[in-house]
Amino acid sequence: MSQSGMTDLPKRPDLQVAQAFLAELAKIRDVDGGVRRDSYGEGENRAHRIFRETAVSLGATWRQDAACNSYARIEGQDPSRQLIIGSHLDSVPTGGNFDGAAGVALGLAVLGGFIASDTRPPVSITVMAIRAEESTWFNASYIGSRAALGVLAPEELTQVVRADSGQSLGDAIVESGGTLAPLVRRAPQIDLGSITGFIEPHIEQGPALIAENMPVAAVTGIRGSFRYRSARCLGAYAHSGATPRDVRQDSIAATARLVATMDELWEHLENEGHDLTVTFGRFESDPRHHAFSKVAGEASFCLDVRSASDDTLERVHADLLRLVSEIESSHRVRFDLGERTGSDPAVLSTELVQGLTEAARASGAPCHLMASGAGHDAAAFCAAAVPSAMLFIRNRNGSHNPDEHMSEADFNIAAEVLLAFCKRHHG
Amino acid sequence: MSQSGMTDLPKRPDLQVAQAFLAELAKIRDVDGGVRRDSYGEGENRAHRIFRETAVSLGATWRQDAACNSYARIEGQDPSRQLIIGSHLDSVPTGGNFDGAAGVALGLAVLGGFIASDTRPPVSITVMAIRAEESTWFNASYIGSRAALGVLAPEELTQVVRADSGQSLGDAIVESGGTLAPLVRRAPQIDLGSITGFIEPHIEQGPALIAENMPVAAVTGIRGSFRYRSARCLGAYAHSGATPRDVRQDSIAATARLVATMDELWEHLENEGHDLTVTFGRFESDPRHHAFSKVAGEASFCLDVRSASDDTLERVHADLLRLVSEIESSHRVRFDLGERTGSDPAVLSTELVQGLTEAARASGAPCHLMASGAGHDAAAFCAAAVPSAMLFIRNRNGSHNPDEHMSEADFNIAAEVLLAFCKRHHG
Repeated sequence: MSQSGMTDLPKRPDLQVAQAFLAELAKIRDVDGGVRRDSYGEGENRAHRIFRETAVSLGATWRQDAACNSYARIEGQDPSRQLIIGSHLDSVPTGGNFDGAAGVALGLAVLGGFIASDTRPPVSITVMAIRAEESTWFNASYIGSRAALGVLAPEELTQVVRADSGQSLGDAIVESGGTLAPLVRRAPQIDLGSITGFIEPHIEQGPALIAENMPVAAVTGIRGSFRYRSARCLGAYAHSGATPRDVRQDSIAATARLVATMDELWEHLENEGHDLTVTFGRFESDPRHHAFSKVAGEASFCLDVRSASDDTLERVHADLLRLVSEIESSHRVRFDLGERTGSDPAVLSTELVQGLTEAARASGAPCHLMASGAGHDAAAFCAAAVPSAMLFIRNRNGSHNPDEHMSEADFNIAAEVLLAFCKRHHG
Repeated sequence: MSQSGMTDLPKRPDLQVAQAFLAELAKIRDVDGGVRRDSYGEGENRAHRIFRETAVSLGATWRQDAACNSYARIEGQDPSRQLIIGSHLDSVPTGGNFDGAAGVALGLAVLGGFIASDTRPPVSITVMAIRAEESTWFNASYIGSRAALGVLAPEELTQVVRADSGQSLGDAIVESGGTLAPLVRRAPQIDLGSITGFIEPHIEQGPALIAENMPVAAVTGIRGSFRYRSARCLGAYAHSGATPRDVRQDSIAATARLVATMDELWEHLENEGHDLTVTFGRFESDPRHHAFSKVAGEASFCLDVRSASDDTLERVHADLLRLVSEIESSHRVRFDLGERTGSDPAVLSTELVQGLTEAARASGAPCHLMASGAGHDAAAFCAAAVPSAMLFIRNRNGSHNPDEHMSEADFNIAAEVLLAFCKRHHG
C-alpha cells in the first residue's frame, strides 16, 4: 500500500492477467468444437480452479461458498462495504469463450490494476465467478446467483437434474466440493447488507453495438419474457389430394398462420415504439406421421416473447390468446399451449447506470445505452433488491457458439471504463 | 353356358365371394395395427395367393405376368376384346383393408355374377390385381401398372430400392416369382390392342361422398401435381432476446409466411372456381439446433400442389416462385426448393364415365361426378392411351389408416353399378 493510497489510484487495469485467464479457459474444449464448461461438471470445475489460481497469484483473497461460487476480493478504504463485479464461468455445449467469462476476466483486470499500483478502492471489490447460469445443463435459471443470495428453493436441489446424466443438482454441487446444509436453510452466501452494488460486464449477445459502432454499453434493463416451451396444434391427418379445403384440420397451416400473424403484430408494435421480440424457435410436424401426401394432424412449437415492459408483455399475451382462438375456429384445430413460464423485466439501478456512463465519459470511451434482450445473473441480483447494472462489450456473431468475437481493443476499453467506475464508486 | 347366353344376363353380382376375399385379406395384419401388404413383400404376395385361390375356385382363368400382377378372366361373347377391372392389393404400413383391395373385390363380384348365372358378357372381362401402387415401399409410382403396360424404365429395376430394407425392385420382383427379362425389354404384359377400357373401382380417399350423401361417383379426371419433397429455408441462428427484428434471418418466420400466403392464394383461387389443393405436409426446424431461446437458422418442408387443370398448376407455380423471391428479400433468408416432381392431370374417358353414370341410373343408384385428388393406377393406363375411368365408393375416415370405413351397403351398390356397366359394355 503506497502512502498516497487514497489519491494515487491505478492508471491501468491489468490486461495481461485477464487475457492469460481467458486463454487458460479457452483450453477447456468441447470435442465438437468450441468450449465446454458444463455447470457443476468437469468443465466448470476446471474453470473455477483457474480462477482460484489467478486470484491467489494476484494476491487477492479467495474463497468459495456452499454452492461453489468463487470470490476474489481486495479490501477497500471502507472494508465494511463491497462492490461485486461478477458473471458466470459455465458455457453451453460447443460454446464460445467469452459469454460469461469475459465479465469475470474484466473483474480480475480491475483487481489486478489496484493490486499492481498498491492502491485501495473506495469500497472493497469482490470479483464473483458465478456457477450454473446456462440453463442448458440444469433447467433452472440463475442457480449460482440465487444460491448465493439465499433464494434458491431447497427442493430444486433434489428436483432439478442434469439434462444429459440425470444427476440431481444437489449431488452435482456436493461432487464439485459444495455443502448442501446452508443451501437447504437458504443461508445467503454473501453478506447482503455490505453490498453497494452488483456490476455484470458481459459480451453483447446481439448485434446492436456492431450496428451502432460503439465498443460498450451501459444496460438500463433486462427484458422480461413469457414463454411456451412445449406448445402443440392438434388437427387431423388427411389425404393431401383428396381432402377439400373446407373440411381440413391442417395443423401446419394453422400454426403457420399463428407465426405469420404474430410476426405482423410484432412489426406493428415495434413501429408504435414498443420494446419487443417475438420468436418461434421450434416448429415441427411429427416425423413419425408426416408425409408429402398427408395433411399434417399435429405440429409442435415453442414461443419466446420478450420485452422490457410488463404492459407490452401482457398486451402481446392477450393478443396471442385471441389469435389462437380465432385460428382454432377458422382452421378447425385445437391449440394446447402448455405451461406458461417466463420472467419479469428487470429495471437496473439508475445510479449505477449513470456511474457507468460517467466512467465511460471520464475514460474517453463512447458508451451506448440499451436494454438487454437476454437474461443474466444481474436479473437475480436485481430481484433480490441489490442495486445492479451491466456493462455490455461489443461482440460479433452472437453468443452460444464458437464464433462469438470480442476484439481485444473493445475488451481493453471495457476494462478502462470499469476501472474508472470502481475508482469513483463510493457506494 | 345357358342357351339364352346373350340375353339371360346375371341379375346379381356375387357379393359373397367378394366379402370372403376381403375378409381373408384383412387377416394380413401389421403388428402396429391395421393391415400390412408390403409391395413385393410377404404381405402383398400373400394377398395375390388369396386372389389366385378365389379366382380359381370361382372358375375364372388365372395368370400372373412377369411383374407378378395377377389376372382372373372370363371370356366374352367377343373373346378378342377385354375390359379390365383392376386395382392394387398392396397397402401402406398400418393401412386400411379397402384402399385398392375393394376394387379388386368388386371385379371378383362381377366375375362371380357372370359365372354363377352361366352367362357371357359382351367382351371378355379381366380382373387385374395390380402390384406396388403405394409408393411408401418403393419410391416410384404405379410400378405394377407401368410394368404391365411396358413403360417401366429398366433402370428402375436396379435403382429403385425398398425404403426399409434397401432391396432393389428387380430382386423383389424375382423373389416374388417374377422374371426380369421381359421387363428389361419393356414387353407389355397385356395384349394392349385387345383392351376396350380400364375401370378402377376404389374407395374415395376424401370426404366428398360423405358430404354429398352419395354412395358412389364416376371419376372424371385425376388431379396432376407439382411437388417439392425436400425444400429448405436457410437463415441464421441468433439469440431470441438479443437479436433485433430488422437483422433477423428467421427461417421459421419466413417459411410460416410462405405457408400462410400460399393458403390465402388457395382460398382466393378456389373462390374463383379453380380446382386446387395446396398442402405443406411437413415443416421442421432442425432438432439438433433449435431451442426456445434461438432464432431458427434452418427449416425444411415439403409442398404438394394438385389440380385437375394444368393451367392452374402452372399459375400457382409461378405465384410460388414470386412469393419465395419476395420473402427472401423481406426476411433475409434463402429458399432451396430442391427438385420439382409431379404428374400431369389425367382426363378420363368421357365414354366410360358416361357408361358408368348410365349403369348407375339403370340400377337405381345415385351417382356423383367428381375429380380424384389422389393418384391411381388409372392414371398410368390413361397415360398409355387406354380409355380409363374410375368408380369411387363412399368411405369414412380417409384412407391409409386402419379406420377407413366403407359400408357393405355402399359396396353392394358399387357392385350392382359395375355389373350393370359390364352387361352393357360392348367396347
